[in-house]
Amino acid sequence: MVRLWVTADLGAGVVAPLARDQAHYLTHVMRLAAGDELLLFNGRDGEWRARLTDVGKRDATLEVLAQTRALTPGPDLDLVVALVKRGRLETIVEKAAELGARRVRLVITERTNADHTNVARLQAIAVEASEQTGRLDTPEVVAPEKLERLLAAWPADRPLMFCDEAGDAPPVLEAMAAGAGCGAILIGPEGGFSPAERARIRALPSAVAVSLGPRILRADTAAIAALTLWQAAVGDLRGA
Amino acid sequence: MVRLWVTADLGAGVVAPLARDQAHYLTHVMRLAAGDELLLFNGRDGEWRARLTDVGKRDATLEVLAQTRALTPGPDLDLVVALVKRGRLETIVEKAAELGARRVRLVITERTNADHTNVARLQAIAVEASEQTGRLDTPEVVAPEKLERLLAAWPADRPLMFCDEAGDAPPVLEAMAAGAGCGAILIGPEGGFSPAERARIRALPSAVAVSLGPRILRADTAAIAALTLWQAAVGDLRGA
Repeated sequence: MVRLWVTADLGAGVVAPLARDQAHYLTHVMRLAAGDELLLFNGRDGEWRARLTDVGKRDATLEVLAQTRALTPGPDLDLVVALVKRGRLETIVEKAAELGARRVRLVITERTNADHTNVARLQAIAVEASEQTGRLDTPEVVAPEKLERLLAAWPADRPLMFCDEAGDAPPVLEAMAAGAGCGAILIGPEGGFSPAERARIRALPSAVAVSLGPRILRADTAAIAALTLWQAAVGDLRGA
Repeated sequence: MVRLWVTADLGAGVVAPLARDQAHYLTHVMRLAAGDELLLFNGRDGEWRARLTDVGKRDATLEVLAQTRALTPGPDLDLVVALVKRGRLETIVEKAAELGARRVRLVITERTNADHTNVARLQAIAVEASEQTGRLDTPEVVAPEKLERLLAAWPADRPLMFCDEAGDAPPVLEAMAAGAGCGAILIGPEGGFSPAERARIRALPSAVAVSLGPRILRADTAAIAALTLWQAAVGDLRGA
């Protein structure tokens, strides 16, 4: 069944007019007709079954029927990632949504050779991936900020897991064995962090250096592997 | 330093003429000139430092200098993956190389809507990713075969880890805790395996059902997450 992220409050009997792009998506892309049912979520009220009504040329309305799942928020996990090439950044955002990150924060580092990106487009990718992956919220994509600034304001009690290419860091599952189930993953640009940045990160009391194995990983691979291992160590891929 | 996969035997003093496409790559794409050094590997002799000589318009020669790393083969891991859309399949092959799979075997399943792919192109992607990731071999990409046939010939002593969407399977790290350090990962098409295929897989004595968490993953995300977790459980991302 089609799943759609909406901004409206959801509850039995709610009638919500659709934004034009969502009406277009449902009726023209997904080919739903009046009377067809779909699932809605908004990040606050869980998941609800709804019916499409009043389908016009450019608009349509949703009639909310009944709750199918209560809200169960995933782990409080940020993916902090340096701006990398557009295609790889889009992959990272899609995978962060599928692998349950709550936020994607973009950072500009010394070796980042881009200082802007289309945040709205990345947010749309995060929403679409969230619709397909079955989660009940969508990760927020936060506009780029300088790494220095992010580190200066980093909370001392929020573990910041970073891949240390120096080589003596323990694997994620060892380093995070006693993890708090909240925190962040920091992924650098393709060229890595500068020595000054590395020193600054390592000096943070909340930094946790980890190894992602014996091979050099591209930024997108590192992000996906780190998200997976973090979830397996302290998140919702953990065993019972 | 540039790393190049070659077919020639490698040893001190070996002089190897380059294939035209590799000569072009080194001199025009990577902008190496006569006298520049690079690293070579062939999957058999470890990694060697070499010097580019006799650079002509369309050819060049390599002079092998000294070994930089002895061959240390990674785990004996196959990724068996159903044909999916080209872009996602290319991503899977690239990531399989970065995450240390020894082979990528392509399979045709009931819900696969493609029955061929450009294996040579996928092999080239695997080689390029291997050059960049620093490994000493490259995964072999094996031409598509029918899932049924692959399962019929599957060795009883080779664990075949597959993601069971039924939901009662344990997480990878639990299911593989006593793993052999060799085996395979089976990833189905976007539409999943058919009920008959699932029954056939589950009936294999070597099949190990695992869960990849509470969300629905696209085929490429599932492949990357499964490779990562397999390596963390029984491969070379494992702790000391």
